[in-house]
Amino acid sequence: MQFCSTCGAGVTSEIPQGDNRLRSVCNSCDTIHYVNPKLVVGCILTWERKVLLCKRSIEPRRGFWTLPAGFMENEESTMEGAAREAHEEANAVAEDLELFGVYSLPRISQVYMMFLGQLKDGFASAGEESLEVGLFTRDDIPWSELAFPVVTESLKQFFNRDQSVKQRAYLADVHSRPGQDIQVIRHH
Amino acid sequence: MQFCSTCGAGVTSEIPQGDNRLRSVCNSCDTIHYVNPKLVVGCILTWERKVLLCKRSIEPRRGFWTLPAGFMENEESTMEGAAREAHEEANAVAEDLELFGVYSLPRISQVYMMFLGQLKDGFASAGEESLEVGLFTRDDIPWSELAFPVVTESLKQFFNRDQSVKQRAYLADVHSRPGQDIQVIRHH
Repeated sequence: MQFCSTCGAGVTSEIPQGDNRLRSVCNSCDTIHYVNPKLVVGCILTWERKVLLCKRSIEPRRGFWTLPAGFMENEESTMEGAAREAHEEANAVAEDLELFGVYSLPRISQVYMMFLGQLKDGFASAGEESLEVGLFTRDDIPWSELAFPVVTESLKQFFNRDQSVKQRAYLADVHSRPGQDIQVIRHH
Repeated sequence: MQFCSTCGAGVTSEIPQGDNRLRSVCNSCDTIHYVNPKLVVGCILTWERKVLLCKRSIEPRRGFWTLPAGFMENEESTMEGAAREAHEEANAVAEDLELFGVYSLPRISQVYMMFLGQLKDGFASAGEESLEVGLFTRDDIPWSELAFPVVTESLKQFFNRDQSVKQRAYLADVHSRPGQDIQVIRHH
């Protein structure tokens, strides 16, 4: 941030009184501009034990496979956002969503909230942000062509868990940096 | 948002190509400014079956009681943020945190992520944003002096749930508007 979005004056980086972090501060209109993590909502949708994946048509990671997910919008709930993303990216209707996992990505200041549910009627087709969509068994998943470490982690946890009983939501931190090994800290 | 935070020019409100929502767009430097929900992280900390509450020293809701909670900061995990808030507001050390509930507040575009854990050594004292802190049994909770509906909902769910077994995290939407009845939709 270089300029105040309220008044257009230049901002400075300083620690406001009573705070302990650098913020973008406008000394012209006295606005403090806070920047906070973004919430990404998405879902694992299943049909006959297969999982819906989308091949990305947009950057970053164009051509790689992902779970339907995207930035949560204002004035929606987390569950509504996850269902919306499934609809936008795969023309899919999500049913019976439950919270599956919460993944913190501190390096890029994002939090992924993944839901688990059924893909209504087993129907999906490519939305604007997808080149194609598909339903994959565990063995069919293109593990080396997944778009993001958090997608890999979500799918691993899905296939490894006991499907016969209701499970607690996962909580994990995903630490990744391009070219380096991915480190996942699983809290529960 | 009136001005572009990147170049300082005036922004317009328009739907970008390929999008379906109004965004603040800078036609001078072609930046689209997305505004997304804020994540609030907090915790229910217990000591001998009592819950830690803080009386707010700041607006909004100065003088009302709340659970330690605040906006998640960049470059931290959700759990780290919850523990940080307990430390800042109540000089408290949070132990054994687990995810307790996720509450969407669509009207104000916030998502609360509440953790449950132990208050180390039963020690707490008022931090800068608190007038005082206290440990409360269910019967002692100042139910009519709680700061926010999401705090009331979290405490209700905590005291109503079976403490003897590990529970799934709650997922709920809290719809409230000053002067109107609060509506809570509990998904699980």
